Amino acid sequence: MQLSGVDVLGYVAGLITAFTFLPQVIKTWKTQSAKDVSLAMFLIAFSNQILWLAFGVLRADPVIIITNAVMLIMTSLMIALKLKYNHS
Amino acid sequence: MQLSGVDVLGYVAGLITAFTFLPQVIKTWKTQSAKDVSLAMFLIAFSNQILWLAFGVLRADPVIIITNAVMLIMTSLMIALKLKYNHS
Repeated sequence: MQLSGVDVLGYVAGLITAFTFLPQVIKTWKTQSAKDVSLAMFLIAFSNQILWLAFGVLRADPVIIITNAVMLIMTSLMIALKLKYNHS
Repeated sequence: MQLSGVDVLGYVAGLITAFTFLPQVIKTWKTQSAKDVSLAMFLIAFSNQILWLAFGVLRADPVIIITNAVMLIMTSLMIALKLKYNHS
């Protein structure tokens, strides 16, 4: 497999995408407050990541599969934290 | 151009992705409070969307370009709202 510069750019973008929600998870975990965070945003992200995962599996594209599997874990964590700390 | 079911799934996922941040923008706009929202998350998303835009332009892929242009607008709005309402 020969990687072009464009492919590498795609991999880097995919890698960063996977960890976009991490700072929010850490922040909410630490402050135990999620009042200002939109639950709808994470519910949309969740359904979307399911679609992307299905797309990745159908395309047999490991980057799309791994990126969205990591995001799905972050998003599930964030939904759980939002429901737990919504009142604060 | 012939669209397969897999392509359609990709387009739908791309369309939903573009509007993931919209509920957060609306919520912060209404409540005028962004204390619990992670600025780091949106800064990562911002740099990431720049990379995806560059990738879309190099690949001449309109779906990637449009999706990330829309996200870049939402993310910029959200960074502005976060900086404005951080104290509340």
